[in-house]
Amino acid sequence: MTRRGRALKVGILGGMGPAATADFYTKLVRSTPAVTDQDHVPVVIWADPTIPDRTAALLGQGPDPSPWLEQGAHALVLAGAELLAIPCNTAHAFLDTVRSAASPVHVLDMVAETAAEVARLQPGATVGVLATTGTLKAELYQHALAGRGLTPLVPDDTTQLGVMSAIRHVKAGGDLAEARQLTAPALQSLYRSGATAVVAACTEIPLLLQSSDVVDATAVLARAVVRRALADVRAIEGNPCH
Amino acid sequence: MTRRGRALKVGILGGMGPAATADFYTKLVRSTPAVTDQDHVPVVIWADPTIPDRTAALLGQGPDPSPWLEQGAHALVLAGAELLAIPCNTAHAFLDTVRSAASPVHVLDMVAETAAEVARLQPGATVGVLATTGTLKAELYQHALAGRGLTPLVPDDTTQLGVMSAIRHVKAGGDLAEARQLTAPALQSLYRSGATAVVAACTEIPLLLQSSDVVDATAVLARAVVRRALADVRAIEGNPCH
Repeated sequence: MTRRGRALKVGILGGMGPAATADFYTKLVRSTPAVTDQDHVPVVIWADPTIPDRTAALLGQGPDPSPWLEQGAHALVLAGAELLAIPCNTAHAFLDTVRSAASPVHVLDMVAETAAEVARLQPGATVGVLATTGTLKAELYQHALAGRGLTPLVPDDTTQLGVMSAIRHVKAGGDLAEARQLTAPALQSLYRSGATAVVAACTEIPLLLQSSDVVDATAVLARAVVRRALADVRAIEGNPCH
Repeated sequence: MTRRGRALKVGILGGMGPAATADFYTKLVRSTPAVTDQDHVPVVIWADPTIPDRTAALLGQGPDPSPWLEQGAHALVLAGAELLAIPCNTAHAFLDTVRSAASPVHVLDMVAETAAEVARLQPGATVGVLATTGTLKAELYQHALAGRGLTPLVPDDTTQLGVMSAIRHVKAGGDLAEARQLTAPALQSLYRSGATAVVAACTEIPLLLQSSDVVDATAVLARAVVRRALADVRAIEGNPCH
């Protein structure tokens, strides 16, 4: 494969958490149709794990992460990024802030991309959401799924505590089998309550659950990035990237 | 764990190849003693896979990648990096160029770190080198290992062709089992010729070989980065990072 079109330089506003950013970048590389290094998408990653906890901020229990997100967006644009992605679902509660900071560079919406993918695969479905308590409280997926004609379903407060513990467990580099057990009650109750799909709507979740069990929002975002970044390449070469 | 010291911001000059950079970042995250996101090292990654092939340049068959490496080093320093790492062994043939471009920011030497680690684990050993043909031609590991009192051993020209094919296979996102088979003759002949350790001296190699079979230069660099980046934190907190 020889390419003549130029891929966009992708800026990744990451570090939320770091393992999730590494997972996202790995999925981005794997989603890219490439034969040599030079076929891949140029990427700049800003991974500042000192960004204050997004869920704590959304629950009114911690500082607003906006200044950190703005600083990251500015740094990525300064480094030449032509398209931005944020591999953290909870941070999408602050998407408008990032978009203002990155303007006129486009910032992809992971939540909207994921809702669109689920609607394409299972129109009208009832869809469970495994996410941080911050993402649930901000109703990011509830609105995005409903906007696509899907019925969102969230865990009850007790099983949600298990999901949040599992997420913290992954962030702490803890045992993944243990984290998996912590999410099991929520996953089971969502399916038992009628969900026909469950979205891994926190980027730590795919690190512990099989992709066969959930729709992986991280992978959806990775594919969206590759599609957009190579749009120009495809137009020239008929690149089979989808 | 509460920390008071500040971690250095790490710049990663990557994209050579992208999967190897993702692997390096994953290992860096896993090497970090952390309980929350905020305990992790801030990282900026410049992954420009359009950097011309390093081996081709060293064999006089392709353009000099120096301008691309300089551009990346400048971008990382501009983004505030206080310590640089290059997760590509072959690119270390151009280490002086990167160091000049990044000055006064320190650039870690993956080859020197790895030779030091092998010398610590197996003083005086005979050490096999699985690397690109460019790395071998530049004699990066031959010099570094000899400088530490170790005896370097490289594959013969025929088995080296298999190693280079395996590396290209990984860069192309090919089947890893097949790539593993391509390196098997070199690995076996190095051990048969008296090597008691073999260094995975190309960042694509650990993607296909078990860490029990080789000394993983990527992991060595990741640990060196964490050690340096958290040096100040350790001084204050007695952090157990090693």
